Amino acid sequence: MSIKIGLLGFGTVASGMPFLLKENKDKITAASGTKLEIAKVLVKDDDEKKRLLAAGNDFNFVTNVDDILSDDDIAIVVELMGRIEPAKTFITKALEAGKHVVSANKDLIATHGKELIRLAQDKGVAFYYEAAVAGGIPILRTLANSLTSDKVTRILGVLNGTSNFMMTKMVDEGWTYEAALKKAQELGYAESDPTNDVEGIDAAYKAVILSQFGFGMTIDFDQVVHQGISSITPDDVAMAQQLGYVIKLVGSVEETPSGIFAEVSPTFLPKSHPLASVNDVMNAVFVESIGIGESMYYGPGAGQKPTATSVVADVIRIARRIKDGNVGKCFNEFIRETKIAHPDDVKSHYYFAINTADEKGKMLRLAEIFNSEDISFEQVLQQKANGEQARVVIITHSLSKSQLVNVTEKLQAVADFKLLNTFKVLGE
Amino acid sequence: MSIKIGLLGFGTVASGMPFLLKENKDKITAASGTKLEIAKVLVKDDDEKKRLLAAGNDFNFVTNVDDILSDDDIAIVVELMGRIEPAKTFITKALEAGKHVVSANKDLIATHGKELIRLAQDKGVAFYYEAAVAGGIPILRTLANSLTSDKVTRILGVLNGTSNFMMTKMVDEGWTYEAALKKAQELGYAESDPTNDVEGIDAAYKAVILSQFGFGMTIDFDQVVHQGISSITPDDVAMAQQLGYVIKLVGSVEETPSGIFAEVSPTFLPKSHPLASVNDVMNAVFVESIGIGESMYYGPGAGQKPTATSVVADVIRIARRIKDGNVGKCFNEFIRETKIAHPDDVKSHYYFAINTADEKGKMLRLAEIFNSEDISFEQVLQQKANGEQARVVIITHSLSKSQLVNVTEKLQAVADFKLLNTFKVLGE
Repeated sequence: MSIKIGLLGFGTVASGMPFLLKENKDKITAASGTKLEIAKVLVKDDDEKKRLLAAGNDFNFVTNVDDILSDDDIAIVVELMGRIEPAKTFITKALEAGKHVVSANKDLIATHGKELIRLAQDKGVAFYYEAAVAGGIPILRTLANSLTSDKVTRILGVLNGTSNFMMTKMVDEGWTYEAALKKAQELGYAESDPTNDVEGIDAAYKAVILSQFGFGMTIDFDQVVHQGISSITPDDVAMAQQLGYVIKLVGSVEETPSGIFAEVSPTFLPKSHPLASVNDVMNAVFVESIGIGESMYYGPGAGQKPTATSVVADVIRIARRIKDGNVGKCFNEFIRETKIAHPDDVKSHYYFAINTADEKGKMLRLAEIFNSEDISFEQVLQQKANGEQARVVIITHSLSKSQLVNVTEKLQAVADFKLLNTFKVLGE
Repeated sequence: MSIKIGLLGFGTVASGMPFLLKENKDKITAASGTKLEIAKVLVKDDDEKKRLLAAGNDFNFVTNVDDILSDDDIAIVVELMGRIEPAKTFITKALEAGKHVVSANKDLIATHGKELIRLAQDKGVAFYYEAAVAGGIPILRTLANSLTSDKVTRILGVLNGTSNFMMTKMVDEGWTYEAALKKAQELGYAESDPTNDVEGIDAAYKAVILSQFGFGMTIDFDQVVHQGISSITPDDVAMAQQLGYVIKLVGSVEETPSGIFAEVSPTFLPKSHPLASVNDVMNAVFVESIGIGESMYYGPGAGQKPTATSVVADVIRIARRIKDGNVGKCFNEFIRETKIAHPDDVKSHYYFAINTADEKGKMLRLAEIFNSEDISFEQVLQQKANGEQARVVIITHSLSKSQLVNVTEKLQAVADFKLLNTFKVLGE
């Protein structure tokens, strides 16, 4: 007896599955309690089918999804097509047909996960998606299974490999954003339109899913504030280093007295912070909780084999649960009423880079503006002026999002000051 | 309906459990599918009982273990006494009485785990011990549940918080071993007899357990080679830094063509290696595998709340499995025939620190000795001599344990050379 799998898509990740199923056959069979077999693979059309067969891929390729959905022998459907449609329709049909589903599709799960999870529950089938967040890092199952006893207060994550690769070049080698992007594109890390990666959209999808597993709350994708790395200048990077920080694109989800708050933003990390050493395309999720305190989960955020490893781990769990007659368990059972934080409750230290005319009294005026919003300085650095313009860099003590909005408006209202950049700073 | 727990011992970790059960009550109840209740707590004698009650602890303290073992209402026994006896006898009796057991007792599990696991299997009950390795880091469950699809090739771990605290002081602040030990004892990190921590014994116990979860093989404790940090000198630390490394006490388990090999030893880690930034009392387990590639799990290795969090996570899993009628699953189901590696197959780069008379021809003689064992140099550094003695530091290319034994014997046989220290070096 074996458990049969239908694969939707045969791209990079999917084609890593046969490698694992072969290399780790004995271990996987023992853990599943049964053999796993890829019975059918959905591809786009006959051309793709011919190409894959010619390349030596020995699978039963089909071009009509119904060949998989109506096949009663197939118990588990693995969706690795990406994007919203037709993945959403296919997963919906698979769940409706009583099949268990594994997916790595973070966009889909972050935007339509709720209804798919509900459908899976209604049908008593499993819907797992470990690979959707931080590819090879088993963070979702860890939050669901090991941190059940703990209360998470904040999750910070380096969640996008492409932007982290770029930031590593910008920090370690002083590259400009443009040069880093060019290199990332050359290496195939960034797409020709890099918006999703560099503007924090990809990381925001992941923050949505992390909010569910870490806090039991489903924040909507458009409630996740996201700011990307394209505005970071070599000056900002140099200032960060001088002040003892490393800039990275960080996704954060935290619980405040009024609810949760999620955002993706360039963040100054103290050099000694574990996330500050996460470099190149690696990802990491740093969890703050009342029990463990601080823990971090580090690994590759993407890539064929790492992602396939997470997908196959999901498949094994389902196979085992089928065998044990215990398959209805929701991937994430931690569910609370979703409450979104009030801006007064969301607090952080901030970095402000400001250009001002190199004239007497400007620093006083600046101090007055911050003081009027009850914001105090932790570090101030005025750089040597070029005769006309002086650059002032400020790291503040903790302030709320409300204060941030107010002070930003005031600074922008004064013609003397040009607010170059504002970034979050992680306090030590 | 609630599931009742009997606690054996009410020391530091045990007394952290009520905090979690109270603070996270709703989440824990939802995850367990039932309420959890500490029904009885075994303490040593009436004096301890009086003291605990007087301190405001509101539990049903008992002084006879049979009060717990013969109580049919108690489903789960949590052993947090430490040491081998009477913990072993009590756990054995609890399993025989059909009770599920959770333990954080690494010494016991590393030395007698096999028979306790077998007994639990025979009785169809659970025996979980997540907290036994790296306290707050959920590494065992992650290896058992998430890395089932992967093949682990090597595990490297900073597994002992006390020695890591000391190494951090020795590396970052240039302290001597003696000064670091004194501070660790002042802070309560090290005991008055620090042997278990500083000589790698504690980490070796953890390596035994990691070998079971990572490789499915049970290496005996006395098959784990262990070398401690007491021989590390400020010179070694300075040399490491100059050559681009950080020294830490690292436990490693790896699979070679002939079998597995486990050891605990001071190790030169490249500064960019993720383990190199694991400082103070923090622990981390770095996993190399064919699927994920490289992943790391970081957190506190000890402490009341972190360890209690792991213990309660185990209790929740058991409670849930009781409710689901599916409780017999072994904590680690990955079991293969144990094969121990042949010394020819165990390879590493090495650091040699050698004193020699500051005379002509000594470097040639040294090179001849290494060459005669087919060992080549990666870096050589001869320090300015003091007129009489020169110090030579060598980082070799990869060599086997057999080669290491041979070259060490040859060096020791030559009166001109004094071999000061030999440490493993992690290749980049």
